[in-house]
Amino acid sequence: MSVTQVAAYAAPAAKAPLERTTIPRRPVGEHDVLIDIKFAGICHSDIHQATDGWGEGIFPMVPGHEIAGVVTEVGAGVTKFAVGDRVGVGCFVDSCRECEQCLAGFEQYCLKGMTGTYNAIDKNGEPTYGGYSTHIVVDENYTVRIPEGIDLDVAAPLLCAGITLYSPLKHWNAGPGKKVAIVGLGGLGHMGVKIASAFGADVTVLSQSLRKKDDGLRLGASEYHATSDETTFEKLAGTFDLIVSTVSAPLPLDTYLRLLKVDGAFVNVGAPEDPVSLNLFSVIAGRKTLAGSSIGGIAETQEMLDFCAEHGLGAEIELIGADRINEAYDRVQASDVRYRFVIDTATI
Amino acid sequence: MSVTQVAAYAAPAAKAPLERTTIPRRPVGEHDVLIDIKFAGICHSDIHQATDGWGEGIFPMVPGHEIAGVVTEVGAGVTKFAVGDRVGVGCFVDSCRECEQCLAGFEQYCLKGMTGTYNAIDKNGEPTYGGYSTHIVVDENYTVRIPEGIDLDVAAPLLCAGITLYSPLKHWNAGPGKKVAIVGLGGLGHMGVKIASAFGADVTVLSQSLRKKDDGLRLGASEYHATSDETTFEKLAGTFDLIVSTVSAPLPLDTYLRLLKVDGAFVNVGAPEDPVSLNLFSVIAGRKTLAGSSIGGIAETQEMLDFCAEHGLGAEIELIGADRINEAYDRVQASDVRYRFVIDTATI
Repeated sequence: MSVTQVAAYAAPAAKAPLERTTIPRRPVGEHDVLIDIKFAGICHSDIHQATDGWGEGIFPMVPGHEIAGVVTEVGAGVTKFAVGDRVGVGCFVDSCRECEQCLAGFEQYCLKGMTGTYNAIDKNGEPTYGGYSTHIVVDENYTVRIPEGIDLDVAAPLLCAGITLYSPLKHWNAGPGKKVAIVGLGGLGHMGVKIASAFGADVTVLSQSLRKKDDGLRLGASEYHATSDETTFEKLAGTFDLIVSTVSAPLPLDTYLRLLKVDGAFVNVGAPEDPVSLNLFSVIAGRKTLAGSSIGGIAETQEMLDFCAEHGLGAEIELIGADRINEAYDRVQASDVRYRFVIDTATI
Repeated sequence: MSVTQVAAYAAPAAKAPLERTTIPRRPVGEHDVLIDIKFAGICHSDIHQATDGWGEGIFPMVPGHEIAGVVTEVGAGVTKFAVGDRVGVGCFVDSCRECEQCLAGFEQYCLKGMTGTYNAIDKNGEPTYGGYSTHIVVDENYTVRIPEGIDLDVAAPLLCAGITLYSPLKHWNAGPGKKVAIVGLGGLGHMGVKIASAFGADVTVLSQSLRKKDDGLRLGASEYHATSDETTFEKLAGTFDLIVSTVSAPLPLDTYLRLLKVDGAFVNVGAPEDPVSLNLFSVIAGRKTLAGSSIGGIAETQEMLDFCAEHGLGAEIELIGADRINEAYDRVQASDVRYRFVIDTATI
C-alpha cells in the first residue's frame, strides 16, 4: 500500500469554508479495495454536516458519500473486485454484519448503527473521510460495481440520491398502473421522477412553482403541478397510490395526505429538522400510511445501479472543479442546481 | 310492515342526558330486513357524538352501532337472511355501492362517504337512528350474520370494537412469530388482545398503569407494561412488529415509534381530536410506518364474526338496563368499565 496521505477538500471547522488539505487513508487490508476516486457528488446532507446542522460533527470533515472511481489495488482476500473495476461507494463503509438487519441486507438500518462514509468513527477508532478526495480505502463488502453503460460522473449521485429514491419506490410498489407523486424536483426528486417512470408508474411532480416544469416532463413525469397553487390540492385529492417527499421544508402533512387514495402511502426521504404537526384522522380515514425511508442496503444499491445501467439512467449533473465547492454549497442552499453538482476529483 | 314508531333512547340535544322516546323506522323495503334488537353496545364514539364533540350532530340522536338481534321480517327480494336469523349491524347501513372502494369490499372507505348507522342522513333524506332501540330496518347487504357459538350480548361489541381491531391486525399481518403491542386496555384494546392472541401473535399490553394487568394476561397477553414507567420505553425499544393504539389521548409518537422494529408499523384506531407532533426522522430511521385504520367492510366484518365464533371470542361486557345509559356514559368517560357496557334492549 503506497498511499497513506492523500489530497482532499475538508471543512476545518463547523461552517468554515472547505479548503484543500491532506488526510490519511489506512493501508489496504485483506478485504479492502483502494479506489482512485474520479467523481464525487455534492449531497445536501454534506452541507448539513459541514455546517454542523445536525450537531456532533467531527472536524476536520471531508464530506462526500456519492463516490465513483476505479479500483487500483486489492487486498489479498478480495474476491469481488479486481484492479481496473469501476466501482462506487455510498453513504456507509461498514456495519456490524451480525444483526438481523445486516444479515437481511438492510445494512443501512444496522441495529448497532452503520459507519458513515464520513463524519463517523470506524471500528479502529479512526475518523472516516468521504469522497471529496483523490483516493479511498473501503472494504469490498461495502463497495458496489458501476456497470458499463453509465458514465462515472452521472453515476456518482446514484450512490445516495439514486438509492434514496429507488428503495422506497420499489418497496411501495411503484410500477404500471400506479400513480406516483414526487414532491420537490431537486437532486433527489429528479432521480425519483426518472426511476419511478422507468418502473412504469404514472409520475406527477409536485413542486413549489412551475419553474422546472419542462425538465420534469422531459425526465418522465406526465403531470407537473405547483404546490403554491391551492387548487392543486383540490384537483388532485384522492389521486395517488404513493407520494415520495424529497423536501426538508416542513410540509402541511394533513393537506398532502388528502392527495392519497385509500391505502396510499406518503413516504418521507427528506425531513425537516423540527417536528411537524399531524391530525391522526388524516391516516385513519382511508387507512393511509405515513412512512419514511433511508438510502438502501448494499445489495439493493447494486440492484439499483444495474437497473439504472439497463435503463440508461444517470443523474443530471453540473460538473465542477474542487475550487468551486464552496460556491456550489451556496448554490445548493439556494436551490440553484440542475440537479446535482459533481466534483471532478482530478482537480483536488 | 307493522312497525313505524318504535321505542328508543335518544339524546334530545347535544350534551343532554339520554331519555326514552319513540322514533320512526321505515317500512321494510324489498331488500330490507326488520331486526328485533336484543343488545346494543355502548361505544366511546356514541358519547363523542351525543355530546356533539365532533360537531354537526343531528338531534334528537339515538346512538348505537354495535347491534345484535334477530330477523323478524324480510323484504320480498331478500336472499341472504330469513326470519329467525341471528344478525348484527355495525357502524354503517349504506354506501354508494359503485365506487372502487365499495366494489372492493371496503365500504367503510366509500369515496362518497358511507351512511352512518346513526347521526347521518340516508339516501331518502331521513335521519338514521342507531341501536339504543327495540327495532331497526336495514338493507340486507349491510347486515351480517352472527354465527351460533357467540351469545348475542357478547357479540354486539364485535360490530365496532371487534372489527376495528380485527381489520388492522389482519392487514398488518399479526400472527405467529410477530410481536404485537396493544396500547390501552379498554373496549377496543381488550378485543385487540383477544384477536391478536387468537391470530397467534405474541401480545404485549401497554397501559398507563398495571391496574388491569391480571385481566390483560388472562385475555391472552404474554406481557403487560405500564407506560407511566419511563423504563418501559427503554426496555422495549425496537421490540414490536406492530403497535395498535386504541387510545384517544395524544401520545408522544416519537417515543412510541422507537418501540418498533425496522419496518414496523404503529397503527392508530383511536385518535386524539387535536393534532399531534411528530419528528419525521422517527419514521425515516428504520423505514417505519405510522398509519390508521377505520372499522372494516361488510365482508370483513362477517369474516371477523366467523373467526370469533370459531375461536370462542366475545367481548367482556357489563350488561345494563336502558335506565342506566347515562350512568354508563359517565363511567366510560372515567374508564370505569371492564370492558364494554351492553344495553339489554328489552328494557327500553
